[in-house]
Amino acid sequence: MPLRDLASGLAYCAINTATLGFQAPIAATIEAVARAGFGGIAPWRREIEGQDAAAIGRHIRDAGLVVTGYCRSSFIPAANRAVFDANVADNMRALEDAAALGAHHFVMVVGGLPQGSRDLAAARRQVAEGCGRLAVRARNLGVRLALEPLHPVYAADRSCLNLLSQALDLCDALEGETANPWVGTAIDVYHVWWDPNLAASIARAGQTRRIFGFHVCDWLVPTEDPLNDRGMMGDGVIDLPEIRAMVEKAGYSGLIEAEIFSARNWWRRPIADTLEVCRQRFATSC
Amino acid sequence: MPLRDLASGLAYCAINTATLGFQAPIAATIEAVARAGFGGIAPWRREIEGQDAAAIGRHIRDAGLVVTGYCRSSFIPAANRAVFDANVADNMRALEDAAALGAHHFVMVVGGLPQGSRDLAAARRQVAEGCGRLAVRARNLGVRLALEPLHPVYAADRSCLNLLSQALDLCDALEGETANPWVGTAIDVYHVWWDPNLAASIARAGQTRRIFGFHVCDWLVPTEDPLNDRGMMGDGVIDLPEIRAMVEKAGYSGLIEAEIFSARNWWRRPIADTLEVCRQRFATSC
Repeated sequence: MPLRDLASGLAYCAINTATLGFQAPIAATIEAVARAGFGGIAPWRREIEGQDAAAIGRHIRDAGLVVTGYCRSSFIPAANRAVFDANVADNMRALEDAAALGAHHFVMVVGGLPQGSRDLAAARRQVAEGCGRLAVRARNLGVRLALEPLHPVYAADRSCLNLLSQALDLCDALEGETANPWVGTAIDVYHVWWDPNLAASIARAGQTRRIFGFHVCDWLVPTEDPLNDRGMMGDGVIDLPEIRAMVEKAGYSGLIEAEIFSARNWWRRPIADTLEVCRQRFATSC
Repeated sequence: MPLRDLASGLAYCAINTATLGFQAPIAATIEAVARAGFGGIAPWRREIEGQDAAAIGRHIRDAGLVVTGYCRSSFIPAANRAVFDANVADNMRALEDAAALGAHHFVMVVGGLPQGSRDLAAARRQVAEGCGRLAVRARNLGVRLALEPLHPVYAADRSCLNLLSQALDLCDALEGETANPWVGTAIDVYHVWWDPNLAASIARAGQTRRIFGFHVCDWLVPTEDPLNDRGMMGDGVIDLPEIRAMVEKAGYSGLIEAEIFSARNWWRRPIADTLEVCRQRFATSC
């Protein structure tokens, strides 16, 4: 099965609004993304909360876009039980907005070590428990839960879920094997490209139908800041066509989403320019 | 079996000279490390090459120290065959110095992607081939080859060997199962602490007698620079006693080596002060 042609298939491509540096209100961003010809958008909570999520969802659909992932969970692990419960509750509220938006899935960035802790295993147990609670609510709301394993460089402060295989183990623990899973993964090339077990893990994710989202960007050499110095597709060292081939061969037919945190470059450019370069690079470099 | 007592057993502890910022010539560094009471030292090629390695080895032994690892290989993967061969040859020469020094093992930091390449699998194949050639020579010289998996944040530019399990797979591929292995691993907490499969991989490394070295430092939050902003033991979030327990339970009885790359802090302090803090932290935080 050949790869989907992204040059003539911009409808397969989505823009994560973080790529545009949050320079415009969500309404203007929706219009810009639709005008540029993309098929989907992934908004962030900072753009939605305090507003009418259902109305924004209608705006997105009326513009001809789908909502891929709604970004994202706040961190789950906490130094005590009360804060843990509050963290879970915060994400419960976000799930309601995900449903109101009509998002395909809610992106889980699970959090790292609580302040003062060195107990990574305990943080991972808290993540499993919190995700378990959220998964029940998500399913009731009709929102899929997409666990996003993050690069190990973030293990301390952003996510103790660091391998795709680890995320899939958690999916299995939460839901068991099922023909129609509601708990799956968001696979971001930035986080997983280095993994020597990547091909096997992607194949496994496909077999269990747990690829809910697929994000692209690039790894720059050198990387000035592991958080906010991501590259545009084609500007770094990740073999994007190879990883996309793994993902599509595994049965993924959803949108391919550009998510580029780039404080020194793309966030400083006009939105329309960045969208145009994304369009070109989806065609030539993914 | 209880952990070894490092408070009364400084002889179990070694200093990697990089910890001291290369402020003094190797002769003075040897004296300072011995005077402080440590049992071993891990010198770098920049301190040895161009000098009489055998004489330096005698100096180290006369000072009452052993050489743990000799640091380190230059990078193996290359954009063409001639450069690859030259890279292997460079490390062959370093192996001779390792033997002359009487080092327990030669530390392999294998290298990442060659300039202009996105082919991580090809880089890994080159590493396997290069290590295979070096392993033969190392064994003939009586020097163990210690593959050091590096944190995935270095996959592009420093090492495409990024998981302990991956390093062990390579050891097995190079040597097969053997009661007296000459190819093994150097386990550095900085690179592996986040790995959800760490306990299983350390146990496997012990069963196959492939733990040649064990390095400690700490992961600071925040980390300003993933290369040269490592923390002193106890100043970060790594559960050092837990990982040491895994390693010693797996049968490791070699020295515990402090290796701290710290451009903004420890490298700027007087050598004797840094050695004294290392001594204290071995006793209290490892």
